[in-house]
Amino acid sequence: MTRLSTYFLRTLREDPSDAEVTSHRLLVRAGYIRRQAPGIFAWLPLGLRVKAKVEQIIRDEMSAAGAFEVHFPALLPREPYEATGRWEEYGDGIFRLKDRKDADYLLAPTHEEVFTLLVKDLYSSYKDLPLTIYQIQDKYRDEARPRAGLLRGREFTMKDAYSFDHTDAGLDASYQAQRDAYERIFQRLGLEYAIVQADAGAMGGSRSEEFLHPTPVGEDTFVRSEGGYAANVEAFTTTAPAPVPFDGLGEPVVFDSPNTPTIDTLVAHSNAVLDGTYTAADTLKNVVLALTHLDGTRELVIVGLPGDREVDDKRAEVAFAPAAVEAATAEDFEKNPLLVKGYIGPWSPTGAVLGEESATGIRYVLDPRVADGSAWITGANIDQKHVHSLVAGRDFVADGFVEVANVRDGDPAPDGSGPVTLARGMEIGHVFQLGRKYAEALGLKVLDENGKLVTVTMGSYGIGVTRILAIIAELNNDERGLIWPASVAPFDVHVVATGKDDAAFALAEELTSTLEASGLDVLYDDRPKVSPGVKFGDAELIGVPQLVVVGRGAAAGEVELWDRRSGDRQVVPLADAVARLTTR
Amino acid sequence: MTRLSTYFLRTLREDPSDAEVTSHRLLVRAGYIRRQAPGIFAWLPLGLRVKAKVEQIIRDEMSAAGAFEVHFPALLPREPYEATGRWEEYGDGIFRLKDRKDADYLLAPTHEEVFTLLVKDLYSSYKDLPLTIYQIQDKYRDEARPRAGLLRGREFTMKDAYSFDHTDAGLDASYQAQRDAYERIFQRLGLEYAIVQADAGAMGGSRSEEFLHPTPVGEDTFVRSEGGYAANVEAFTTTAPAPVPFDGLGEPVVFDSPNTPTIDTLVAHSNAVLDGTYTAADTLKNVVLALTHLDGTRELVIVGLPGDREVDDKRAEVAFAPAAVEAATAEDFEKNPLLVKGYIGPWSPTGAVLGEESATGIRYVLDPRVADGSAWITGANIDQKHVHSLVAGRDFVADGFVEVANVRDGDPAPDGSGPVTLARGMEIGHVFQLGRKYAEALGLKVLDENGKLVTVTMGSYGIGVTRILAIIAELNNDERGLIWPASVAPFDVHVVATGKDDAAFALAEELTSTLEASGLDVLYDDRPKVSPGVKFGDAELIGVPQLVVVGRGAAAGEVELWDRRSGDRQVVPLADAVARLTTR
Repeated sequence: MTRLSTYFLRTLREDPSDAEVTSHRLLVRAGYIRRQAPGIFAWLPLGLRVKAKVEQIIRDEMSAAGAFEVHFPALLPREPYEATGRWEEYGDGIFRLKDRKDADYLLAPTHEEVFTLLVKDLYSSYKDLPLTIYQIQDKYRDEARPRAGLLRGREFTMKDAYSFDHTDAGLDASYQAQRDAYERIFQRLGLEYAIVQADAGAMGGSRSEEFLHPTPVGEDTFVRSEGGYAANVEAFTTTAPAPVPFDGLGEPVVFDSPNTPTIDTLVAHSNAVLDGTYTAADTLKNVVLALTHLDGTRELVIVGLPGDREVDDKRAEVAFAPAAVEAATAEDFEKNPLLVKGYIGPWSPTGAVLGEESATGIRYVLDPRVADGSAWITGANIDQKHVHSLVAGRDFVADGFVEVANVRDGDPAPDGSGPVTLARGMEIGHVFQLGRKYAEALGLKVLDENGKLVTVTMGSYGIGVTRILAIIAELNNDERGLIWPASVAPFDVHVVATGKDDAAFALAEELTSTLEASGLDVLYDDRPKVSPGVKFGDAELIGVPQLVVVGRGAAAGEVELWDRRSGDRQVVPLADAVARLTTR
Repeated sequence: MTRLSTYFLRTLREDPSDAEVTSHRLLVRAGYIRRQAPGIFAWLPLGLRVKAKVEQIIRDEMSAAGAFEVHFPALLPREPYEATGRWEEYGDGIFRLKDRKDADYLLAPTHEEVFTLLVKDLYSSYKDLPLTIYQIQDKYRDEARPRAGLLRGREFTMKDAYSFDHTDAGLDASYQAQRDAYERIFQRLGLEYAIVQADAGAMGGSRSEEFLHPTPVGEDTFVRSEGGYAANVEAFTTTAPAPVPFDGLGEPVVFDSPNTPTIDTLVAHSNAVLDGTYTAADTLKNVVLALTHLDGTRELVIVGLPGDREVDDKRAEVAFAPAAVEAATAEDFEKNPLLVKGYIGPWSPTGAVLGEESATGIRYVLDPRVADGSAWITGANIDQKHVHSLVAGRDFVADGFVEVANVRDGDPAPDGSGPVTLARGMEIGHVFQLGRKYAEALGLKVLDENGKLVTVTMGSYGIGVTRILAIIAELNNDERGLIWPASVAPFDVHVVATGKDDAAFALAEELTSTLEASGLDVLYDDRPKVSPGVKFGDAELIGVPQLVVVGRGAAAGEVELWDRRSGDRQVVPLADAVARLTTR
């Protein structure tokens, strides 16, 4: 019997000083977790119980999907990650260390490499496939800014699964099985989700979808259309307008535009001197970005996009990955005197053009909206001068197109399903067709039906166990504390004995025994000299969904059933309480 | 249903090239574990099942002993370990790393510090105690020579428990509760054990006992007497003989002893020139050791012990901890010309004495057998000369006594329970009264019954989960493979369908369903085109204790029950097989 008088638990009255979000605040105050270092937590008995329940739901559904559980170490040697290039790609984002023999190791942030090598070690024929294996394991990322408690930790528990097939159709089926399992898992956890297309580029794969929990406080932005399109903004693709024939388009004209380094000042000046009704969308903004490549070299790149759009940092990060992106600095401009800040353009009477055959030597890329035949007002690469009627494809040619402009409500979905609206969400899962990238890098091949060696194609499927737990806590609480869904509550029932009457305590103990005998997990607050107020406060903070108060009514054989979520409280005979609790 | 045709398993015909012990060889060949780096392993589905069963037995008994489960991170900051001095003490034995902000971290080898701080954070009164909390968690040690598979790994799973009390009597009770739980755990695991006194020094505590599994291949040596004394050799204490009065003892006499740098040559020469019947036990051997202290300084120390004893490395390691011990080098002798190799003694006509008021300035310590009044033949600190009739306490005085001499069969137990015999064992558990060392270092105090702040006293209790699993494998096998005890077997029953008759497969499947419905874990070998020989070989290698072969007899409703351990095979009707398997 779990008696609160001896249970290892201390609820706290004060919020932890570093708590930025509700889940962190409540999980610490209610005695579920305890901070050890930035982004690193210890799990106390209550927290461990919830974590075990989340993990069990995941295990059930993995097993139902035909996946087998394994367990890899967190501490792994450098070599496999070197072979796929990730040892470098991770940059500062992982923990690296050396052993006493000076060999390099890492604390693995994800395990594609070693799963691939394991299957390579053991399997050799298409007959061994399909195979999906998974683990529930503690992972490490050296986050620049660990925050929000368990939502973004440096040590965290993940379920990561990997599928192995020898055909693309096989991969599709394995992917679908995991995707279906994820839907069942989130349904059982009571977590609303949207499945959105995600960018597949950085990992080298083909199909990639994220499970996002829609919430205004989510870190991720995604878009969806009424017609069913959904994607995170990094994966959104712009619909380019049709090209316009050059016939009949006017010639570019350079004009004086003193003190117009911004789009707003340029539009106002243009409407004044050109006698037009231009908007920001008629101007071509040229933004200078600085990329830092993995080998440490710095490269400037200029992005041309309509003046009513901004460069979206996250989209730029994905577009230029694995290079890091930042705005060009004053020093960058000093080193490149052809770049006239505030008046940069793709064409100039002085010859300082951007793009193919560029005089600057700097790569010039365009937003897809800058289609051939579209005419723009833009910089003339001369201080205090702009040019109008500059036609894309005729007067300037770029080095390619790039998806970095921000996405807006009303932008057309790329699949033609109508305009999109923006929403925010928290990532709760990710399913991913890796394809053959890892198998190729690490040499995982099997013999096919014809006795030919073929490279295996893989999928990767992740759920953040501790992150999900935090999201559930984030969604299920009120001003008095946590309110767990029954599927993951640390206990099924919390029995509170109140008063000084021994009969109440005796009845509460009898009730606890009865409920336990029927298979329920019960927390029994048997503390003898604690006031009902304190006991109720603790119970509301802890958040077991079903409370039973045994107090004054005990003599009459009555107890109070208390639904934590609705707040509904009803006095019922003991037998009725037992019947209702055991038949849920 | 767990069908072998799709299960993630590949048994291997070849032993792994790095396998030094049977458990490692068989666990790899039978598909339980897979090496990732020296001393670091991945767990495959079969291995994970056995590990989970071992863990569940431990959890059951921890819970029965009133301990609560928590879970700490492996990655921990330096500060707590700095406060107790262990950050330095561990030397090369732990993995250290830095995060992106250059802060120091370690992969924890044990968690006394953070458990202490957790209780300090949450508890403040004697009313909160006693408390015992534990975790089952992956730990790290950067072993100089990881070997023997899971027996000595660099990543390994431990159950570590810590008790907190405010009185010594409380600590005794908490200690006893864990000790009792350990006995139950090892009994359930079918592991024979001896409980032996262990050295408590290095950890700073008072009472310390190890659970050793007696086996000739064990790494640890322990002694036991018929009267019930048991200790590992590091903890054995020598019974010093009674001092002898100096009256009537002869004076020391220096004599020529050319070419007698060893005890054997000295004894032979002494018996020749002194006309005696001396043995090695009549000589005093002086061994020069070099200690390296934590701050890096090197100190020589000379140990005097009877010539028939050797310095035992492990006892010396404990006696001089935390300094590292090695034999003095030629360079050490060169730097100390007063040390005449082969002729070192505690007294000399030249005045080059050892011990108190020493001319060498080197610390001189004695084996307890060198009692006051005992007379010795020993070096005269002059090349080719020894001295006889040299009396301890009269002619020389040491700087103290030290327990470094080897222990032998027949040595008296220190508790008077008779002569001891030596045995070998493998450590399977350790219970330890830490006392107040950690609580003092980290400031863990509570208010006692009188409102006074008192320092908490602690115990530490460890079981190596993965090590135990390996030991069980080491003890339970034959030339064909593993033979698991039922309590930890990956499956309860292994059903093997043989032949080409569909009826056999149908019956095997029906049997598997029936057994599963009654709660048994069943592995079903349903592979259609695999010969009975291969199937039986795999089954014997995997080592599920109870096999059922469904083959030719299927048409007649008969199956073969096969006891893996005894090898006994019996053909019985299906119903009988089910009855026998489900009523075990």
